[in-house]
Amino acid sequence: MKVNNIHYRSIWESKDNPFIIKIIDQRQLPHFFEIEELKCLSDFLVAIKDMHLRGAPLIGVACAYAIANTAFLSRNLTLKEFEATIESTVKKLSETRPTAINLIWAIEKQLQAMRKVSSMEEKIEATMITARKIADESVSDCKNIGEHGVKLIEDIYNKKKSTVNILTHCNAGWLATVDYGTATAPIYIANEKNIPIHIWVDETRPRNQGAKLTSWELGNEGIPYTIIADNTGGLLMQKGMVDMVIVGSDRTTCTGDVANKIGTYLKALSAKANNIPFYVALPTSSIDWTIEDGINQIPIEVRNCEEVLYADGLIEGEIKKVLIAPYNSKALNYAFDITPKELIMALITEKGICEANKESIMKLRD
Amino acid sequence: MKVNNIHYRSIWESKDNPFIIKIIDQRQLPHFFEIEELKCLSDFLVAIKDMHLRGAPLIGVACAYAIANTAFLSRNLTLKEFEATIESTVKKLSETRPTAINLIWAIEKQLQAMRKVSSMEEKIEATMITARKIADESVSDCKNIGEHGVKLIEDIYNKKKSTVNILTHCNAGWLATVDYGTATAPIYIANEKNIPIHIWVDETRPRNQGAKLTSWELGNEGIPYTIIADNTGGLLMQKGMVDMVIVGSDRTTCTGDVANKIGTYLKALSAKANNIPFYVALPTSSIDWTIEDGINQIPIEVRNCEEVLYADGLIEGEIKKVLIAPYNSKALNYAFDITPKELIMALITEKGICEANKESIMKLRD
Repeated sequence: MKVNNIHYRSIWESKDNPFIIKIIDQRQLPHFFEIEELKCLSDFLVAIKDMHLRGAPLIGVACAYAIANTAFLSRNLTLKEFEATIESTVKKLSETRPTAINLIWAIEKQLQAMRKVSSMEEKIEATMITARKIADESVSDCKNIGEHGVKLIEDIYNKKKSTVNILTHCNAGWLATVDYGTATAPIYIANEKNIPIHIWVDETRPRNQGAKLTSWELGNEGIPYTIIADNTGGLLMQKGMVDMVIVGSDRTTCTGDVANKIGTYLKALSAKANNIPFYVALPTSSIDWTIEDGINQIPIEVRNCEEVLYADGLIEGEIKKVLIAPYNSKALNYAFDITPKELIMALITEKGICEANKESIMKLRD
Repeated sequence: MKVNNIHYRSIWESKDNPFIIKIIDQRQLPHFFEIEELKCLSDFLVAIKDMHLRGAPLIGVACAYAIANTAFLSRNLTLKEFEATIESTVKKLSETRPTAINLIWAIEKQLQAMRKVSSMEEKIEATMITARKIADESVSDCKNIGEHGVKLIEDIYNKKKSTVNILTHCNAGWLATVDYGTATAPIYIANEKNIPIHIWVDETRPRNQGAKLTSWELGNEGIPYTIIADNTGGLLMQKGMVDMVIVGSDRTTCTGDVANKIGTYLKALSAKANNIPFYVALPTSSIDWTIEDGINQIPIEVRNCEEVLYADGLIEGEIKKVLIAPYNSKALNYAFDITPKELIMALITEKGICEANKESIMKLRD
């Protein structure tokens, strides 16, 4: 999508060497727009772990490129050494962000691609082709999510005949994917179609991806938005100020339970209580076909408690952090929660809109 | 309660002149402990409006003292001028914080007290006696809330035989009252009785009263606590990590709907969904006997959007604020929401524990 009216993806290959990858350092947004080069595995590991980039689909693409990069840099090793290097790379990448299923999915795609060929040169080429394919497919998947999801917005507009108010949590925008986003794809397509929309942006503590990233994305596209504290969505729903909710997903079980940014569950409960449709937008690559019980089977990442005890932002031209609690306080920082299928009106996928139950979801697998 | 092992109230009379009132400047907490003197009406108005002090019961007490202070400073006026000054003072105080019912309640008590006597000297004396009485009664009310509420904690401990995990939102602590607090009173009494407890403290964006004030209070009393983002309570409840929720109230209808800090409603929904008892602790002075429908009849204060767009905290030895959103973003900052009676297990009042319905609540009026 656009940044100062120029089109960007969130991740792209360097012109000089496609094995060197460029990303937007999302820690600097919305205050500074900085592009970072990822040249070796440790660059990728730091970027993923420390959230220079984030969002389950983008993490998947970054892992695919990380494997291509490692393969390329290992071109002078023996085949045995090469394979050992790939194995250790896969292990390190797998440990960066435990909740995002796309990470495992992308790694598996790369391993499959390499298995199909025998020489090292072919394997290296296969990893680049696969990474590129995963990135391009992410874009087309997100665009398709948008095309399917926009119908839901259009339906509300046709009934209401005035601005459709959509609440979203965290950033499931183009910055979390490669382009278009998941939760934001229907929003961007609605905007292209001139359907009047307004977005309630949950700030999404502790990392504030809503206040920082979703707002920045929407502002660049000229879409009206209002930032609210995470506490506020319930009251807005009670007051009839929200027409629908669309969020993304870090992992969805084949039965329809959704892991997404911590706080999603609370908004889903409130939407249900106030008869407001709650949608989850996701590529089918976010579905974990192996598990049925989100609450008991999806691992929830615990992040550093400093994210809770401090808030960071712009002050005197620099990004700095301020302590918002007593010095040496204890905090707990779960990054995701589980929204049970009962609270979800439907899933919006690249293959179409489907109910959040096993029967409907399994049909997407074909 | 204790600050560095010395007992304080949140508001008290100056030794030299009881019409000069001292408060803790809560904007400086937890980083700096600063005592502020309120010497004239504008000091009171600024302190209430800009939240040097906050919390419905404390706002009530501060308003009572503000009227006493105005009365004293008007001692050289004619009776007619005196009465006009009181009238304009009441109007200005009423407009400071529209949601807190105790403010109106305390003002009404002062007006009644003045009506009972005829001379100006008697009126001035009556305002001081009344303010003092409201402050002292707030302390005994809170202590009684604690004595009633601790039984609920004890019951859970007796069944569970291990640490009772209590979640609270915002600060309904002694800093929000004169001493003991409302939601915290059962917690402090449980601690005195050596019942093992642990408190989940919601940070409570946008002003972070949980992270700043509740944590500071609990730390000073040596009670174990963990700060969490407002988004986290739902997951903790899903995981069985919360045994009960206790919050305060800024205004409660005679039918049991509760206005409290924005976000309370979301925790109540989650508690209900996970079969966790949700209690509201309040003095009966917080009950609005005139209204029955919380959602449609309680005015909800809208505060400055800068509270959402910035976060403040300690940096390099000073309290400063950082911008957490794109420059010139739009934000909306409702300060309270309404928790409908259906989600509330019981109200804990100074007169006893009562169900959140009109029949039970009306019995408290006598």
